[in-house]
This record gives sequence, structure tokens and C-alpha cells, in this order.
Amino acid sequence: MKERATLVNEALDKSVPLQYPEIINESMRYSLLAGGKRVRPCLCLAACEAVGGNIAQAMPTACAMEMLHTMSLIHDDLPSMDNDDFRRGKPTNHKVYGEDVAILAGDALLCLAFEYICRETRGVAPERIVRVVCEVGKATGAEGLVAGQIVDIKSEGMAEQVGLETLQYIHEHKTAALLEASVVCGALVGGAGEPDVERLRKYARCIGLAFQVVDDILDITQSSEVLGKTAGKDLLSDKTTYPSLLGIERSKEVAQQLIADAKEQLSCYDPAKVAPLLGLATYIGARTN
Amino acid sequence: MKERATLVNEALDKSVPLQYPEIINESMRYSLLAGGKRVRPCLCLAACEAVGGNIAQAMPTACAMEMLHTMSLIHDDLPSMDNDDFRRGKPTNHKVYGEDVAILAGDALLCLAFEYICRETRGVAPERIVRVVCEVGKATGAEGLVAGQIVDIKSEGMAEQVGLETLQYIHEHKTAALLEASVVCGALVGGAGEPDVERLRKYARCIGLAFQVVDDILDITQSSEVLGKTAGKDLLSDKTTYPSLLGIERSKEVAQQLIADAKEQLSCYDPAKVAPLLGLATYIGARTN
Repeated sequence: MKERATLVNEALDKSVPLQYPEIINESMRYSLLAGGKRVRPCLCLAACEAVGGNIAQAMPTACAMEMLHTMSLIHDDLPSMDNDDFRRGKPTNHKVYGEDVAILAGDALLCLAFEYICRETRGVAPERIVRVVCEVGKATGAEGLVAGQIVDIKSEGMAEQVGLETLQYIHEHKTAALLEASVVCGALVGGAGEPDVERLRKYARCIGLAFQVVDDILDITQSSEVLGKTAGKDLLSDKTTYPSLLGIERSKEVAQQLIADAKEQLSCYDPAKVAPLLGLATYIGARTN
Repeated sequence: MKERATLVNEALDKSVPLQYPEIINESMRYSLLAGGKRVRPCLCLAACEAVGGNIAQAMPTACAMEMLHTMSLIHDDLPSMDNDDFRRGKPTNHKVYGEDVAILAGDALLCLAFEYICRETRGVAPERIVRVVCEVGKATGAEGLVAGQIVDIKSEGMAEQVGLETLQYIHEHKTAALLEASVVCGALVGGAGEPDVERLRKYARCIGLAFQVVDDILDITQSSEVLGKTAGKDLLSDKTTYPSLLGIERSKEVAQQLIADAKEQLSCYDPAKVAPLLGLATYIGARTN
């Protein structure tokens, strides 16, 4: 995973050149190259390999996933949204560049993600690229990430805590949708047929939900220093989370069950080919920051 | 043009269904269906027809252009940007739905634009659709619209007025880039070869610049009521504009020369086929709001 993340970082570094007007590109680069764990790009590359494709075919789509994830972090951190001052251990984008530039940097990363897939992908049939854009658009817009963020914002500060159903809706859209798109689009550019796409989609849904359950647990059990962002925010804002509904121990069990379910989807494949996907599932269940 | 605008409005109305979470879709629809003149979609449809394509092939791309334009208006109007209270004669998006929802509605429209082109386009070779996404992404992101907005924001309130070169950069990126993409992408989905694409690109660059010169003139000569947005803002904010640099009369001459140059590019085509493009050039030169 570290090797892959390095390749992704190199590609991302080249994807945003430092040209006029410098401030927008600096702002995009500031958040894009802030050293995230590159889980989404790694999932995309791994899914492509699992179905017999090669890394080069999936690299532009993998980078696009990180651009979209970064965009969502920049906009979520804004004062009118979650109002966060730190992210990945550094001041948030708007703290450094101002709100106006931060909003535009997010917009530009969003555009670049779609453009980058279509401009840089080689050795993939164009009808597959068109389908990738559909998947990515759906996962990011008003039926995906944006929907999750809206429901999240509108649920906070309500008199009653939201129920498990709403909590799941938020996570499925805010977190799982883009993880799912990363896996599905990796499979698509790798040449997957329909049954493979659907099997990997199920794998992705399980790890997507597990990812958020673990996130909720870490918000309570880890320090801000380890997380690189403000810890304990969910408790302070009286936000509904898995631990607040189920307790920490039961939440941990739920996460582990989801990881097991995810791995189960891969049992029919050659273990050598799905080793990176299996490794990523283990990583997501065991991560500490 | 009115007929075409009606078709575009019908398609846009269907493009954002009123589903859960309703507030984001309501917010998107509020600005998208606020009754703009649909200049970009009309240009897209007209360019497609000029090269022998039909309206149905270009309709999804035409709608996407209006989604992107609307997104840019929503984000430009935000308090941290131009801080505008009125647009198209109605309160701006953030005045009605709040800043958080307005930012997300813009994000969602941006995603939907790319998804919509790829999901809804029929009867066009997929490699052409891939190329359209590249053109649209470049016109909207850090090399297009976003670049223009950044330079615009950073030029305001500076001690000295910006020069003609910076002014042209702002207009070329903030306004002309999307008008150009509308024309070029319409031509691409209509099956245009390279020479046609480049000729129509030149046409689009001329009307794009003319569009902004006329906008600057109208900001001074028309009332807020007629414009549907706050008039006289450029003067109040001491913004560099064509009239402030060249005077109103000379600015009008520049606009008319650009419209004539645009029409000149169409002289080698069958007049019946380019009638809508000629009409749009005339309209852009003569519009009063």
C-alpha cells in the first residue's frame, strides 16, 4: 500500500501545475498533497488489478478519487459547514487561503477530477470511461457525497438524536459512496464484466460502512494529535455516531463483521490477484488514525 | 431562440428530481430554473446543427452548460465572494437556503453536469463524449472559469486599477471560456471535423468577449430592475471594466466589431444551417439585459 501511495502521490503532484493564477493552484496543491493515506486511490488500483487490469489503466481514475475526496474535505471544513481549523495535522484550506479561494479550490478540484479521467486514461475503451464518469458523478453529487453532507448538517443541533437509519444514510452517502465508486471504477477501467462489478460493489459497500464505524470510534478513543484533526468533535456537538447508539464494544464488533463480509465477497477469486483488496479491508478494520 | 429555450427549460426541469434530501434538490432547482436566457444551451444546440447534427444529440450537453453556469453564479454570489443579494430578479441562493446549502448546491450541479453529459447523450460516439468532458472540465476549472473568478476577486480593491490585459484575462476565463465550450462541445457531439471545430471556436471567442463588453456597458446604463441583479456594482467597487478603460462609446464599437468578426467566421457555411448561430451573435451584441 505504501508503494502504491507513493505512485499516487507522484501522479497527483504532476496533476496540478503551479501556473498563473498561482494562488488557486497553490491552494489546490496544499490540500491535495497534504499527505492523506490515499485509501481511495489504492482501492481503485487494487480493484483494477483484481479483474486483470494494470495499474496504469486505473491511475487517472485513482487520482480523480483523491481529488474528489480532497474537494469534499475543503468544503466540509468551511466556516458555514463544519467550521474546522485543522485537517491532516495542518490548518484547513480556508484558514490559509481564505474562504473565497478555498471554495474555488474545491470547485477546481471537482472539475479537474472529471477532466483528468477523460484526458489521461489510456488503453481503456471510451464507453468504459463514459460509464466511469457516470459512476463518479452519482457518487459525488446530490445522490452521493453532497446528499450525505446535507443530511449530516441538517441533523446536527436537532433536539433529538437521529436514529440508526439516518446515521446509515449519512455514512452510505458521505463516506461509502466514494469508496464504492473507487472500487467499481477501478474494476470498470480494468475490463470487469457485470458479475465482477456487482461482487466488488458489495465488497466496497461493506468496507465503506466499516470505514465510518471505525472513524466514529477513533473520534472518541484517539487524540487530535494522532488523528491530525480535531478529536472528540462528535461528542461535543452531540452528534449521533455508532458508539453513541451502540456503545464502543458493540461498534467494534459491527466493524469487524463488515470487514469479514467484505472479504467473503472475494473468496471466489485467485488469492494472489485480490491480495491488495484483502489487505485494504484488513487495514480499514485495524487503522488507528 | 425562445422555442429552443423552452425545450432546454423542459429538459432542465426533469434533470433535477425533487427527491430526498429535498432541500438540496430544491436549492439546485431554485437557481437552475430561475429563468435565465439560456444563451449557452442555445449556442450549444446551434453549433451542433451548424455542423449537421440534430438537437437531441446536443441537448444533454446544452443542459450541462446551464448547470455549470448556474453553479458559477451561486458560488460567485456567496458572501465570501461577490456578496450579492439578488440574481435574475430573485434573492440569491444563499439568501434563501443559507451558505452551507448554497455551496453544496453548486457542488452538486457541477457533478451533475459531467454525469448528465455521460448518462444522457445518445447517438454520439463515446470518444466524442470523452472529449466533450475534457473541454468542459478545462473551461470550468483552474484553467477556465475558476481562474477568471480568482483573478477577478484578487484584482478588486487593489490600489491601482488593473490594466486591459488583466481585464481581458478575467473575461476570457470567467465568461468566454464557457461560451466557447458551449459552441465547441455542440460541434463535437454534432460530428464536426477539426477545421469546423476550430472555426467555431474562433466564432465563440469573439462573441464571448463581446458578451462581457456588453455586460459591462449594461451595468452602467441599465437599472437593477431591468438587469435582475444589482446594477452599478462595478462603478461602486471601482472595478476595471471596458467602459472605465475605453469609455462607453468606444466600448460599444469594440462590441460591434467583435460581433462582426464572429459572423465572418460563419461565412463559408450554408446560411440556413448557421442561421441560429448568426442570430445568437446579433442577440449578444444587441441585448439590453
